[in-house]
Amino acid sequence: MSSKQQICIAIDCMGGDYAPQEIVKGAILGARQYGVALQLVGQPDKIQAELDALETQGIQYEIVPALETIDMGESPAAAIRKKKNASVVVASTCVAKGMSQGLVAAGNTGAAMAAAIFNMGRIEGVDRPAIAVVLPTTYKTPCILVDAGANADCIPEMLIQFGRMGSIFSQAVLQVKNPRIGLLNIGEESSKGNSFALSTYKLLEQHDELNFIGNIEGKHLFDGSADVVVCDGYTGNVALKTAEGVGNMVMSLFKEETQKSLRAKAGAILVKSTLRKVKHKVSDEEFGGALLLGVKGICVIGHGGSNAYAIQNAIRVTKEAIDQDVIGKIESKVLEGCL
Amino acid sequence: MSSKQQICIAIDCMGGDYAPQEIVKGAILGARQYGVALQLVGQPDKIQAELDALETQGIQYEIVPALETIDMGESPAAAIRKKKNASVVVASTCVAKGMSQGLVAAGNTGAAMAAAIFNMGRIEGVDRPAIAVVLPTTYKTPCILVDAGANADCIPEMLIQFGRMGSIFSQAVLQVKNPRIGLLNIGEESSKGNSFALSTYKLLEQHDELNFIGNIEGKHLFDGSADVVVCDGYTGNVALKTAEGVGNMVMSLFKEETQKSLRAKAGAILVKSTLRKVKHKVSDEEFGGALLLGVKGICVIGHGGSNAYAIQNAIRVTKEAIDQDVIGKIESKVLEGCL
Repeated sequence: MSSKQQICIAIDCMGGDYAPQEIVKGAILGARQYGVALQLVGQPDKIQAELDALETQGIQYEIVPALETIDMGESPAAAIRKKKNASVVVASTCVAKGMSQGLVAAGNTGAAMAAAIFNMGRIEGVDRPAIAVVLPTTYKTPCILVDAGANADCIPEMLIQFGRMGSIFSQAVLQVKNPRIGLLNIGEESSKGNSFALSTYKLLEQHDELNFIGNIEGKHLFDGSADVVVCDGYTGNVALKTAEGVGNMVMSLFKEETQKSLRAKAGAILVKSTLRKVKHKVSDEEFGGALLLGVKGICVIGHGGSNAYAIQNAIRVTKEAIDQDVIGKIESKVLEGCL
Repeated sequence: MSSKQQICIAIDCMGGDYAPQEIVKGAILGARQYGVALQLVGQPDKIQAELDALETQGIQYEIVPALETIDMGESPAAAIRKKKNASVVVASTCVAKGMSQGLVAAGNTGAAMAAAIFNMGRIEGVDRPAIAVVLPTTYKTPCILVDAGANADCIPEMLIQFGRMGSIFSQAVLQVKNPRIGLLNIGEESSKGNSFALSTYKLLEQHDELNFIGNIEGKHLFDGSADVVVCDGYTGNVALKTAEGVGNMVMSLFKEETQKSLRAKAGAILVKSTLRKVKHKVSDEEFGGALLLGVKGICVIGHGGSNAYAIQNAIRVTKEAIDQDVIGKIESKVLEGCL
């Protein structure tokens, strides 16, 4: 169980709507399933109380004390400067110091990002770390959207790096060969888009080493038209949250409508597990979180509403990213002069 | 039946994936249901062939010949310059000349917009006409998103007008009192967003006559958090098409999953009509199209995939906008110095 080679993952146990209960539970489940050790970061008494309710036999873990927490509404930069002892700051330091090889955080996204960039540091040559989210599709593999919110303002050059990092992620973690890279835009033709998209299109075309396949409209994010879709962080975040909103609306309208007749009520009972499967497939719980690409350490950022299952999957993703050496692969692209 | 006061609507019968069949059919259905007269614009023989298959007794209509068509892929500006006899150009001229009071077009969106702006003209004082789409919500009234694609590049000042025009639309057509206006953004706090959103937020705040309620995230477009949401046309179009993509994916995954067990298959049969209702509620067929706000004439732009039902609803929206004098209301706001 305890081996020098065992991968260790630092978990911010205090971040997220259901912290610490669901976070600690998911961490223990993930540690068991994927054979990793844990640094559980946060308020020791609260973490211990959760652990007492769980079966932890055979799991290697350490509780790392961090008495402060950063709330969802706090300004990330200010919060990580002021609260040196916040759980997400301490957890990212665990990775920076090499005690853990990856970080899982489900609290304030901006704070997790800021803490990771500040403590782990950017990979040399990467201008701007970016958030890569894995979108469900009706195709055999998911679609990676970069940037989903790290950089609200972008210049076209940044999207070249997003495309490369997303491509490495797609290859390494999703086993996609030669990922097809698309540009999120409002029409298929190269003449479509705002001035930012037009300039980015031209730039992407010039980079022969990228498998750039052209513009991808929002409706084609989910049908396998591209493996990696790049955009600025503002647009990516709007798209991501719009997708979440539509999913919620459809489920809620379906629930409402099935209450209107006995026939539909009966049908709803029969398709309940099917609906759950669909919900699973389209929810971010399944993938467990977004990867912050471009920092010197694996950093997986979970949804604020993460439950234990989502955290368990976040641990899987973190371990895969470590196993597949995503950081090393990005670094070597930099050395090759290709990033 | 034929009265001088009867509202007349010009229909581009040649635009859209299912033209002319579904367009002509929907136009006749709409004319009967909403008591309007029609100018059916396009290739006379093709339109006549469709009419021959329909019950047109009592409907007042005129076929207006237009022998050219503009395809979906054509560059709008070039196409309307070159093809003076294209159906959408001729149809917009029918409105410009006062023979019809509104236009319904389901073909190339850019061409419909360009033809409307070029032939009907902008309302004086409106800097940029914008596309308003009506999004379904789980709330009692839909949410209007402006701009959904007319202006890929915007400056913050343009969004003030979008908010005002959207607000007039919401009041006039959806009967919403004092519509709540939100800014599409990536967080609720005023400090969130890209530089464009930050500047726009500040500007919206300064306009006391607008009922500005702050930032709206993508996930809150569909839950009634705001009545009108403003954004640049690039972001709005990405959000709109992403919503379409998620809807398609959920339906397609549900279909796929229900094939996997007898229980689910049986359930699927029982909830079939419920699903159809949900699909209806979330599809743009129900609303019939987007309104181009800011031109001197009502112009309703349908989805390229519009069927007869969508066109019938487009006629309803066109008639409501005419009845409620949306153009006059925008013009008077201009005169009041409020636009």
